[in-house]
Amino acid sequence: MARSEAPLPADLASQPFAGRLGGNQEFILDPKNEGNVQALKRVPDASPFISLPEIISPRGFVEPGLWKAATIEGIGTLLLVWSTGFIAAHSSTTTPPQPSPTSGIYSTPLFLGPLTGGITNMIILPLFIYSTGPVSGAHLNPMITIATFTARLTSLPRMILYVAFQTAGGSIGGLLLRVSYGTRDFLVGGCAIDTTLVPVGDIFTLEFMADIMLLFLAFGVGLDPRQRATFGPALGPILIGLALGVLSFGTAIARLGYSGASMNPARCTGAFVGSRFPGWAWVVWIGPISASIVHGLIYWAFPPWTYPKANRGHGGFL
Amino acid sequence: MARSEAPLPADLASQPFAGRLGGNQEFILDPKNEGNVQALKRVPDASPFISLPEIISPRGFVEPGLWKAATIEGIGTLLLVWSTGFIAAHSSTTTPPQPSPTSGIYSTPLFLGPLTGGITNMIILPLFIYSTGPVSGAHLNPMITIATFTARLTSLPRMILYVAFQTAGGSIGGLLLRVSYGTRDFLVGGCAIDTTLVPVGDIFTLEFMADIMLLFLAFGVGLDPRQRATFGPALGPILIGLALGVLSFGTAIARLGYSGASMNPARCTGAFVGSRFPGWAWVVWIGPISASIVHGLIYWAFPPWTYPKANRGHGGFL
Amino acid sequence: MARSEAPLPADLASQPFAGRLGGNQEFILDPKNEGNVQALKRVPDASPFISLPEIISPRGFVEPGLWKAATIEGIGTLLLVWSTGFIAAHSSTTTPPQPSPTSGIYSTPLFLGPLTGGITNMIILPLFIYSTGPVSGAHLNPMITIATFTARLTSLPRMILYVAFQTAGGSIGGLLLRVSYGTRDFLVGGCAIDTTLVPVGDIFTLEFMADIMLLFLAFGVGLDPRQRATFGPALGPILIGLALGVLSFGTAIARLGYSGASMNPARCTGAFVGSRFPGWAWVVWIGPISASIVHGLIYWAFPPWTYPKANRGHGGFL
Amino acid sequence: MARSEAPLPADLASQPFAGRLGGNQEFILDPKNEGNVQALKRVPDASPFISLPEIISPRGFVEPGLWKAATIEGIGTLLLVWSTGFIAAHSSTTTPPQPSPTSGIYSTPLFLGPLTGGITNMIILPLFIYSTGPVSGAHLNPMITIATFTARLTSLPRMILYVAFQTAGGSIGGLLLRVSYGTRDFLVGGCAIDTTLVPVGDIFTLEFMADIMLLFLAFGVGLDPRQRATFGPALGPILIGLALGVLSFGTAIARLGYSGASMNPARCTGAFVGSRFPGWAWVVWIGPISASIVHGLIYWAFPPWTYPKANRGHGGFL
Repeated sequence: MARSEAPLPADLASQPFAGRLGGNQEFILDPKNEGNVQALKRVPDASPFISLPEIISPRGFVEPGLWKAATIEGIGTLLLVWSTGFIAAHSSTTTPPQPSPTSGIYSTPLFLGPLTGGITNMIILPLFIYSTGPVSGAHLNPMITIATFTARLTSLPRMILYVAFQTAGGSIGGLLLRVSYGTRDFLVGGCAIDTTLVPVGDIFTLEFMADIMLLFLAFGVGLDPRQRATFGPALGPILIGLALGVLSFGTAIARLGYSGASMNPARCTGAFVGSRFPGWAWVVWIGPISASIVHGLIYWAFPPWTYPKANRGHGGFL
Repeated sequence: MARSEAPLPADLASQPFAGRLGGNQEFILDPKNEGNVQALKRVPDASPFISLPEIISPRGFVEPGLWKAATIEGIGTLLLVWSTGFIAAHSSTTTPPQPSPTSGIYSTPLFLGPLTGGITNMIILPLFIYSTGPVSGAHLNPMITIATFTARLTSLPRMILYVAFQTAGGSIGGLLLRVSYGTRDFLVGGCAIDTTLVPVGDIFTLEFMADIMLLFLAFGVGLDPRQRATFGPALGPILIGLALGVLSFGTAIARLGYSGASMNPARCTGAFVGSRFPGWAWVVWIGPISASIVHGLIYWAFPPWTYPKANRGHGGFL
Repeated sequence: MARSEAPLPADLASQPFAGRLGGNQEFILDPKNEGNVQALKRVPDASPFISLPEIISPRGFVEPGLWKAATIEGIGTLLLVWSTGFIAAHSSTTTPPQPSPTSGIYSTPLFLGPLTGGITNMIILPLFIYSTGPVSGAHLNPMITIATFTARLTSLPRMILYVAFQTAGGSIGGLLLRVSYGTRDFLVGGCAIDTTLVPVGDIFTLEFMADIMLLFLAFGVGLDPRQRATFGPALGPILIGLALGVLSFGTAIARLGYSGASMNPARCTGAFVGSRFPGWAWVVWIGPISASIVHGLIYWAFPPWTYPKANRGHGGFL
Repeated sequence: MARSEAPLPADLASQPFAGRLGGNQEFILDPKNEGNVQALKRVPDASPFISLPEIISPRGFVEPGLWKAATIEGIGTLLLVWSTGFIAAHSSTTTPPQPSPTSGIYSTPLFLGPLTGGITNMIILPLFIYSTGPVSGAHLNPMITIATFTARLTSLPRMILYVAFQTAGGSIGGLLLRVSYGTRDFLVGGCAIDTTLVPVGDIFTLEFMADIMLLFLAFGVGLDPRQRATFGPALGPILIGLALGVLSFGTAIARLGYSGASMNPARCTGAFVGSRFPGWAWVVWIGPISASIVHGLIYWAFPPWTYPKANRGHGGFL
């Protein structure tokens, strides 16, 4: 059977969405095409050229496709949190190891744990992005959703639904993590900090820096339409996986007592629900939200295209 | 001799099958093409748009091509179970190692064994998928076959034949494993659990979670027609191998006494036949079957295409 | 004209041969083309559709191209045996290491030796396949030659010439190995077994299983015309290298006293000529020959194409 | 939604710039095209064929696009310095480790630290080059900017703005590094030398050699128009990352007391601002500047194209 006999069905249920991670704004609707006007009324963020009234319009809440996409986000986040959480789980009752006098941290779990977590992140995340990308855009992370909202690639209803389902999915994943680990006395790498060694102000700085960096890279390799001429949609998800892997590894090995930046509020919230909430739990939300706002300002100042002001049917804010 | 001189023979014995793993529904028959009606009557799952009466029709049992495909599944599963089993085999009579006080699990077989198993899985599975894909669709795993059945990509006769031959092949592979290891006192990573450390309820949760995750990823990167525009059939099998490798490694290192999720009933059944059946052996079947049912419901709710209701010759359930 | 603007010279010395490893039967002559009839008389295995009288016809012995190809096979096998043998060589007079109480085999040469050998095999073999493929089909291994004969992709004269030159080349490689190692007291990984730990019956089972598996994978990714639509001739040799590497590694680490399956009679014969012949030396030939016969039967039952019975100029057996 | 529906907007804000790293002079304006004359007056380095008066013309200082690009360089350098600095950070108050009597440096941080730094550099740098390439050309390093100036691919105003913003961004990154590490008593690999073991003359030689080598490789794989036919813009950034990674690793492990060449004045300046300035701090600037001048002379002697002397609108120096 030759490959080309079976044509790609025209009614393939792939969703146009400007905020699709790894898609580099390739799977979108062209607002200049008259035939898309109706679809863009229902799903305004199917195009990156979206006006402020459209972003905050609550019309999306009655769009069934958005609820479906949010459900997939919830299921995907559940599985992602459970799997990356289980790989990085370790007992919270055993004494943490100390660096060795000859090998420093390199022969201890302080180094080898983040190495394992970083490399598995590099593999797992692209698989999830490929799998959920055509349906929901593969955010699987409230920070990505909020940042695409502040960058005006995601509408307010989609943002609210996604974050709600992601957080719910992550929390269920955390509870399943507790069952899988057999006790709630566990810590998850990336969501565990020894506050006797790292004060809360430093935790926030580290989290904020890692977050803004992940956003900078994720938008640069996964949401930038200029990358279509450089590499196709097959490489984008792999590059995002490399970014997350190297950041989660890199932030974890440098400072004693710090097991790495969170960079995904749903993951750490799930881990806390499954084990226990620490006093600095707010950082895993406030850090990503602050980073998303700062990143949104940079994106507004340096958009990847010149906004085509006059060619939407209705007058926009831009 | 130039590559293009010898044309691809039209009678290449590649089987159209919607459930071909890694093929992303590319090697199928178009039900809209009149010339395919006869072939689709004989092999209904050569197209993904398959009605309920067609799925459960016992006509496939008299189709010789299906028996050939099932035989290849049996041979492939035999070889897969023998090779991945032998790599992960270790004596069941020696005392299991303990984590070291300085390096934790990282310098012990508790970590290095799953690492070896995970990486070799990442290499072996794609090779088998490439090799058996054109004939049988490269399931080599009752869970994949059952899940493609619950997702209505595989007919009932094919499912029954495949699972029977896979289980038989796996069992023969297990007996050859016993000969290869020289005794029946061995354990195979992924099919060995210390029940004094991990209670049966936790075993089921872990197995179910890993299964649903593998199904989610395998369908996302290997059975989703929307991926044809993202990456070709050369990358699909490699991504599935990465998914299996990272899951078998990841589930094995986190909890003491748990050597990883099974995720392939034929493999563990073979290992048990070759060595001994534990009390929790039912989990390696009930876990994958439950996960397949849950996954089938999700797939039914979020199909990758809109079902083209009226264009099959006979009225379907849809 | 795309990148290939400069046309491939018609007189390029690439030999059409259906049994070319990694070529997936792409570099063949079309028997339907009248202009190829003369060439197919001289080299019948330039096409995969070859009748039994053609296979056993001794006419090939007077074909100079076949002697040239066999010479290249001999030189290639010499270099392959010397290089992969030297990497896996270790003294036969020192006491073999024991597993460590904390790390098991993982910190000992029992694991690290096969790991080194497996990874270097993964790299060296594809390089040799790319290098010798256009001339001789890159078998470099009597088992591949015999298996392509039992699968009717290689004629009897070619098989006899190849195996003779491969064995001669391997033996010279073994003698050069003795000079390179400085003594004949050495063992080569994959050709060294402690018979006090592994009885001869088990050796045969292990060898046979590894051989049939390598044949299954090598034919699946390197000799199957259906793979042309999946991946090109650039990926085939790399996949074969991965198959050999993971099998030589995987069979070596599981059982104490067994350093891995041979899977290439010329290599171990060379190693034995260079060092000493053990009592079980016959296994490295009888195992591959048995596997080739079994594989030939499977190939005959499940050919990758429907045989085009009537379209050869002369009446064939099929 | 098929990929091809949404056309690439004509007003995509990608900046033509001959000195774009990894772009191999692919994203440039053709000076022979009449329509580009106006744009080339404003941004002369949008084409590699740039005359001396154009290079030193101060007109670029009033071009808003250049200030935007410089801002992106500053933000990118800030994030790059912070992340690669944090991964390579270690306390300056603990005694440095000694090579072990049995494993030499291989089990000590002297080897494993640079290995970690080198590998993470290989991953992080390409991600940043992809992300900032379309806007600013992805220098993120005063040495690259100065070297493209001496090679006449960058104009004087762009060079001054870039170096200023890169140095400012690096310094802020260094201050954030101090907060992240919790103290100013830290050293950063690549910016830490024990002058009791390595005299200043040797420091300069090592720095100069590594710099000229990185420039040679970066120009060869990332700025050479002849590479367009060899590998596309998707591979260039990855090759540059490999070059930086292997140089930072290679220069760090060879000599006791030397933690690797700087090769990026902004990175070490940032690290010094965050911790403390050593006496040899000038080397991290004078080394790269000397290397850029020498490299510029080589580039002038062996340009990758023959200069098309007569086809610019105004008579140039060339």
